[in-house]
Amino acid sequence: TKKPNQITYSNRGMTLEEDINTTNEWYVEQGLAVIHKKPTPVQIVQVDYPQRSAAVIKEAYFKQASTTDYNGVYKGRYVDFEAKETKNKTSFPLNNFHDHQVKHMKEVLRQDGICFVLLRFTTTDEVYLLDASYLISFYEDMKHSRKSIRKSDVEKYGHLIKIGYQPRIDYLPIVQHAYFSE
Amino acid sequence: TKKPNQITYSNRGMTLEEDINTTNEWYVEQGLAVIHKKPTPVQIVQVDYPQRSAAVIKEAYFKQASTTDYNGVYKGRYVDFEAKETKNKTSFPLNNFHDHQVKHMKEVLRQDGICFVLLRFTTTDEVYLLDASYLISFYEDMKHSRKSIRKSDVEKYGHLIKIGYQPRIDYLPIVQHAYFSE
Ligand SMILES: [Mg+2]
Ligand SMILES: [Mg+2]
Repeated sequence: TKKPNQITYSNRGMTLEEDINTTNEWYVEQGLAVIHKKPTPVQIVQVDYPQRSAAVIKEAYFKQASTTDYNGVYKGRYVDFEAKETKNKTSFPLNNFHDHQVKHMKEVLRQDGICFVLLRFTTTDEVYLLDASYLISFYEDMKHSRKSIRKSDVEKYGHLIKIGYQPRIDYLPIVQHAYFSE
Repeated sequence: TKKPNQITYSNRGMTLEEDINTTNEWYVEQGLAVIHKKPTPVQIVQVDYPQRSAAVIKEAYFKQASTTDYNGVYKGRYVDFEAKETKNKTSFPLNNFHDHQVKHMKEVLRQDGICFVLLRFTTTDEVYLLDASYLISFYEDMKHSRKSIRKSDVEKYGHLIKIGYQPRIDYLPIVQHAYFSE
């Protein structure tokens, strides 16, 4: 049997989204932050209202999100991020992001919000926090430059997040360090 | 024909939600704030994936929201609110709110976020901003007290918002006044 200090947290079969949701629930319970995933946007076309039971959506379509997936509050400040993962080992593909999200990130930065992306390299179970300003700049370079961010650049400009059991992806200490320097 | 200063903005047939969404779009365009309505939460049960066309949700149900409907950023601060309307003239019914939302408001206040409700009295087209601390306190009094907030209390503790054409429900100056006193 494994001793506690031999436990590894990788390959648990949890998606990045599940790991972040679990982390966020823990932050709320601990009173550390109030950050939630927004519901998946759906275009509802047809709804049935059966007698004596709940309304049933019979036809609907997934819509592209116009913002990032996560937002909330930490110490009064607005926090906003998107989370993506890749199986690549040496770079992070930028086609994981889309124009609306990048536009939203710019608007949040202009409004002095804290905005970043969480990037997971799944093969090594490494998660980095990268400030949105870098993501935006790599994204805009894409037209005349490479279609991905080199892992060495993620390491250089980003912050590696400690992966654990609870919280799983403990990004708040990095937020504290990177955005609350006083 | 009406002169511009005779135009009234009431009874345009817009829901409170539409008016707020329009206001928020205008704030984003003007670079004043980035505040959006969250998508309606839906529990998806069955999805079809037809060849060569978009996935179709064939069975889904509306879920009760676990948070408030609107959130975003203004001058770096986190802003969070719920909006409700009533046809009553003398009081605002508290059954418009539910436990999850009130719990969420408490968590946001504890995290030093700006949190309030927008209350519209539809017959007079008056909209008030009431800080969440008052809403929470009236809501918790409900068990042994009245099931609604007197309009006189809304007037006393809240702030009347100017209704116009663009923006329709100009709540940001009130946020500035009530929460940025420096
Ligand atoms: Mg997403
Ligand atoms: Mg609502």
